[in-house]
Amino acid sequence: MSIVRHEPSKIFSKVVEANGFVFTAGIVADDISQDIKGQTKQILAEIDRLLKIAGTDKTKVVSASIWVTDIRSRDAMNESWNAWTGGQNLPGRACVEAKLADPRMLVEIAVIAVK
Amino acid sequence: MSIVRHEPSKIFSKVVEANGFVFTAGIVADDISQDIKGQTKQILAEIDRLLKIAGTDKTKVVSASIWVTDIRSRDAMNESWNAWTGGQNLPGRACVEAKLADPRMLVEIAVIAVK
Amino acid sequence: MSIVRHEPSKIFSKVVEANGFVFTAGIVADDISQDIKGQTKQILAEIDRLLKIAGTDKTKVVSASIWVTDIRSRDAMNESWNAWTGGQNLPGRACVEAKLADPRMLVEIAVIAVK
Repeated sequence: MSIVRHEPSKIFSKVVEANGFVFTAGIVADDISQDIKGQTKQILAEIDRLLKIAGTDKTKVVSASIWVTDIRSRDAMNESWNAWTGGQNLPGRACVEAKLADPRMLVEIAVIAVK
Repeated sequence: MSIVRHEPSKIFSKVVEANGFVFTAGIVADDISQDIKGQTKQILAEIDRLLKIAGTDKTKVVSASIWVTDIRSRDAMNESWNAWTGGQNLPGRACVEAKLADPRMLVEIAVIAVK
Repeated sequence: MSIVRHEPSKIFSKVVEANGFVFTAGIVADDISQDIKGQTKQILAEIDRLLKIAGTDKTKVVSASIWVTDIRSRDAMNESWNAWTGGQNLPGRACVEAKLADPRMLVEIAVIAVK
């Protein structure tokens, strides 16, 4: 058993490797002035970067948790999601509504991958 | 490391096997005209089906995430949950309130199992 | 593959071991008359106890899910969180707002650890 933690802040690590699995934190957009489509695109680019750091990539994501602040914006979020997945190697996924740390954050995504 | 993805839609796979674990998507009821007890029963039957496809079953579920649209309906949901588990092989579980993709959906459940 | 389930209630097990991982249930405070800082402290002490029962400890937590009933109370929750982690061995983490089983419950936490 070994654990590798990457990019710890004061509160959490952005991505953690353990026992053949990779767990990201709940990722939000850097530029929260963008709409949900733009925020989702940013988040998924950040998840790509984190998965690479942990030695894996988006083709190996097995589960995704998505929180949106307005469930009616799910279709707009899915436009960026579908562009990212390309309809390939699709994980299990749950998407529900929840308020996030800042009211300008419209979406947050965490994934579990294998490596 | 191998990943097996079952029943992909355009957006997610209904169940994914990887590294000895099985991850379902967040499952909702097919017939959302039913009450939460009926919806939960449908969802758990679907989870049984998905776990079987992935080579495991409800006795090997280790974690469950449940979202209900009205937390006061938790007891009614639990009636169907308890009937399903039979009080045996109980997973860890978290149940919180969240709005779901369609206002008629009253409950959504995702599980992690081993195989 | 072996599964060890600890402290089952009627509905869920408080902590489950399987395939080198440990999954806690969503834990809430025993004394829900306390503020969120106090409730968080109680929850993390209970998580320490559960991880120990499952043969691991807080230095091996890889992922944490936190639900708070008022996202504006996140900073107060984090005071107890940061005291618990000591800024070391930080897991991935997602924290969102959700209503919990009882309106006096202000926070719920579930973790995944390795052993």
